[in-house]
Amino acid sequence: MTYITIGAHIINRLKQVGIDTVFGVPGDFNMPLLDLIEDDVELTWGNNANELNAAYAADGYARVRGMGAIVTTFGVGELSAANGIAGAYTERVPVIHIVGSPHTNSQAKGALLHHTLGNGDYDVFHKIGAMLTIASTKLTLENALTEIDRVIEAAFINKRPGYINVPIDLIDALVKTPLIVAPLQLSLPKNPENIQFIVINQVLRAITEAKHPTIIVDSTVHRYGLLEEVNAFVKRSGFPTLSTMLGKGAVDESFPNYRGIYNGSFTYEGVKDEIKDTDLLIEIGSVKSDLNTGNFSCGFANTSLKTITLEISSTIINHSEYGCVGMHELLPLLTSALPVSKNPNMFSPRVMPDPIDTSCNDITHNYLWNKIPEYLAPKSVIVSETGSAGFGVSSVKSTKGTIYINQLYWASIGYSVGAAVGAAFADRARKVYLFVGDGSFQLTLQEISVFIHQGLTPVIFLLNNDGYLTEKLIHGPERKYNNFQMWDYSKTLGYFGGHLETNQTNGKSPSEIGLESKVTNRQEFEDAMQSVCQQPNKIHFLELVMPEFDTPYELSQYCVTSENR
Amino acid sequence: MTYITIGAHIINRLKQVGIDTVFGVPGDFNMPLLDLIEDDVELTWGNNANELNAAYAADGYARVRGMGAIVTTFGVGELSAANGIAGAYTERVPVIHIVGSPHTNSQAKGALLHHTLGNGDYDVFHKIGAMLTIASTKLTLENALTEIDRVIEAAFINKRPGYINVPIDLIDALVKTPLIVAPLQLSLPKNPENIQFIVINQVLRAITEAKHPTIIVDSTVHRYGLLEEVNAFVKRSGFPTLSTMLGKGAVDESFPNYRGIYNGSFTYEGVKDEIKDTDLLIEIGSVKSDLNTGNFSCGFANTSLKTITLEISSTIINHSEYGCVGMHELLPLLTSALPVSKNPNMFSPRVMPDPIDTSCNDITHNYLWNKIPEYLAPKSVIVSETGSAGFGVSSVKSTKGTIYINQLYWASIGYSVGAAVGAAFADRARKVYLFVGDGSFQLTLQEISVFIHQGLTPVIFLLNNDGYLTEKLIHGPERKYNNFQMWDYSKTLGYFGGHLETNQTNGKSPSEIGLESKVTNRQEFEDAMQSVCQQPNKIHFLELVMPEFDTPYELSQYCVTSENR
Repeated sequence: MTYITIGAHIINRLKQVGIDTVFGVPGDFNMPLLDLIEDDVELTWGNNANELNAAYAADGYARVRGMGAIVTTFGVGELSAANGIAGAYTERVPVIHIVGSPHTNSQAKGALLHHTLGNGDYDVFHKIGAMLTIASTKLTLENALTEIDRVIEAAFINKRPGYINVPIDLIDALVKTPLIVAPLQLSLPKNPENIQFIVINQVLRAITEAKHPTIIVDSTVHRYGLLEEVNAFVKRSGFPTLSTMLGKGAVDESFPNYRGIYNGSFTYEGVKDEIKDTDLLIEIGSVKSDLNTGNFSCGFANTSLKTITLEISSTIINHSEYGCVGMHELLPLLTSALPVSKNPNMFSPRVMPDPIDTSCNDITHNYLWNKIPEYLAPKSVIVSETGSAGFGVSSVKSTKGTIYINQLYWASIGYSVGAAVGAAFADRARKVYLFVGDGSFQLTLQEISVFIHQGLTPVIFLLNNDGYLTEKLIHGPERKYNNFQMWDYSKTLGYFGGHLETNQTNGKSPSEIGLESKVTNRQEFEDAMQSVCQQPNKIHFLELVMPEFDTPYELSQYCVTSENR
Repeated sequence: MTYITIGAHIINRLKQVGIDTVFGVPGDFNMPLLDLIEDDVELTWGNNANELNAAYAADGYARVRGMGAIVTTFGVGELSAANGIAGAYTERVPVIHIVGSPHTNSQAKGALLHHTLGNGDYDVFHKIGAMLTIASTKLTLENALTEIDRVIEAAFINKRPGYINVPIDLIDALVKTPLIVAPLQLSLPKNPENIQFIVINQVLRAITEAKHPTIIVDSTVHRYGLLEEVNAFVKRSGFPTLSTMLGKGAVDESFPNYRGIYNGSFTYEGVKDEIKDTDLLIEIGSVKSDLNTGNFSCGFANTSLKTITLEISSTIINHSEYGCVGMHELLPLLTSALPVSKNPNMFSPRVMPDPIDTSCNDITHNYLWNKIPEYLAPKSVIVSETGSAGFGVSSVKSTKGTIYINQLYWASIGYSVGAAVGAAFADRARKVYLFVGDGSFQLTLQEISVFIHQGLTPVIFLLNNDGYLTEKLIHGPERKYNNFQMWDYSKTLGYFGGHLETNQTNGKSPSEIGLESKVTNRQEFEDAMQSVCQQPNKIHFLELVMPEFDTPYELSQYCVTSENR
């Protein structure tokens, strides 16, 4: 046996799950842990502007890299992050929330410290943390190492957030540890072979019997990193394949059998036509939330429709659940067992349902989402805010290997700005494109500062339609409460980067760091995008002035069915 | 009997407790309630930039006006506000948090709507709300009227936040109500006369026997609106009187017997000297938190020290508690029973412990807090952020009738910006001065936009010392994590007000709305303050460039005693 500090064990475990950036905000009760992060050459401190943004960043980072972490301080910090952590729960993103809490002596005494409710209760925030995570703990000298491991493992395996409360005096406290520490147990359970055998046969039989099988791919595939497995299956099958909005990006859109986005009754007519005869639906990782199912309108007319649903911990064949057969192992076996697609090129070119309307010069959604693929780098990350951006981006023709980040299930506006920061840290080789509406930008704009401070070079599109468009479409289009002060958005980089000389981006003037402009028509947009492409080492901020009530098709469909639901 | 909608009853009750502004952010599940607010000529919608800021605004508003309210949407909105609501709990501020939740049908089905955790649990956020408030409820058709009243009454009487969850379909639902609705029960319980008689006699005897009585006034006095009662008592007694930091502003500082701020061992030496012989301490509304007690260092050397503590629900005389004798009734009786102070002018001029050091030209804390009273309007509101501003402001010589707002117990940085918005709405006749550090400003700056949008005219001092000063003093003065991107702070009004022509401040150019500047030395400061005084109808934003490690005395004392406490 030897000794290790509890803080060092936390750091080791975070690195072992692939984390190289930890997000958060310093606070009175977490700084010794930040020392360890700052002093570790393999780690970067995210240095976020506030805790909610930090939680969003950890979430965006985890979606690119597999797992994220955030450090906050007791009470004030952790509660500010709560919305972001809850979102990670809903959207199945493993984020470890580490909270530095007061000294164990103060806690034992119930001392009336700042950041408490003033009633001596030191458990209340931990209880709240527990309600929003898959596993939670408050560390003691005795339980620390096993509890840290338990929470990280549970978060990783279940793709949900975990919560670790560490009293400040325990961060540097030494505890006994074996000389060789056992690795974290991060594997999913093995499928039982006998049941899996039955499942494979059943699936193959259903496929053989079907005339018009269709595959729908959803976001679980992203979360469990099964893109390769899924794409092998999709390719070999040759079946028409769709993605949900949450699943956007999982399927290689260059496959001839990729046919577009499925969103229940809101699906584009051309796409609907192609799958109207479906008699076998193969759902891969299905998320049946309102925004992902056309407000619960999924369904096919064929009365003999069969469904197969592949999940991580089960396979459901026509309503019969095989409880321990998960897709991670099943998919490659199914792929090998499939007959090779007879005619992979039987598909006509993909229906692009809404070609550019050239009768006006405005930057409309129709124009933007059709035009933008011309400028996107391959293997990029596209972060889109809930609302018009999140809906609109679903019809973008994707570049290969691009990751899409949206939060259409939890749907907390402002998320995308923080998430884009996280995504930019997660893989500096990928270009990050952020699409955010003016209403959402209001909530979290300060995080733009972090891009500048860290030398990150995203392309930011501020969709300025003067108000909360989605809310206007749902209720009260002319209401004052759906409008707000208009800002000078195209001065954002200047404002947050105005003193660049004093910061890490030493010696560079703001224009060397980034470019920003207000773009009001298509020619200006195309010119601005030329600059974006020519100067990839800068941060770019484009304020796109859009018509107030212009709406992507799917969002307009959603809004008419949603009030008072 | 007649009928009323549940939403209308909520609105009526809010108005009956004196609310004329409701803060919050629109969301899918609260908009019908916002219609009622917008359509009510007596109400203004706060139109905040995000929910945390809205909670802070409701808190700041309540501190000026007696009660505040915030409306958020289910899940995403309410969790974002949680930190602000918890702060209102700690600091005893009655804020009603009204959350619009999904349709009762969706909740009954456990529908997988956006803004849920995706597990059909519609109670989890209400449970969290309950943990951070004194009373909470989820409305039904049957319980709505009584539950709304119960929560508002409990919040008002206890000076703590309350939580009301209203499903969206119930907002416009009609329920039966008497033709004449009984008023809310907002009175504190009457003190029992016989026990009160004993208490008065005991207090008077203690006073008669004491040689050196001292009064210390704390924040409960603010919360219960007892300033008049307390000041009558202080004036008539003629006893040396101090305020705590949280209680700043409760005592009329023009009284000769007002002697300054008491903060345990951190109290200025000159003030300490005056009260070193104290043998009777009369505490009026005592809050024994760390930052308010010199890190729990309150205490007097006199071994025969007696204490009398006047609270809202009890009086404690030398450790013996009279459980139902509250100061609201007791104070006026005590005042009348006191002998008139024999010599109210026995006091020498108040010790101003730290006169301006003229040996440099920097804007130091020593300079700022001594100088600023020359420019302050009477009956103003001074909002100071936790950290150097919150500590520094305690030594300001107050103008008459000025309200001080700080959050030194909960101590959530960023609070002051939202709170200042709330304070500015609460009483447009009072000038609002906001002192906020650059570190704290990062978290909530977007709320500046609301001042502009609403035509509010505060004076904002951004104390720019390039980093998290308080954190540097506690731990890691040279750590990177205590620094961050420096912004172009003196462009703040321009950024948020850049498109003023399209907003409510119709037709005015930014410079007609407000003035902002970067102030680096004393002459510039005094010039800028001349402009502030000459142009009171504008919003003013002054970036004060201060030496990085310059610290108000009391904060430096705090920091050396605080690490790893």
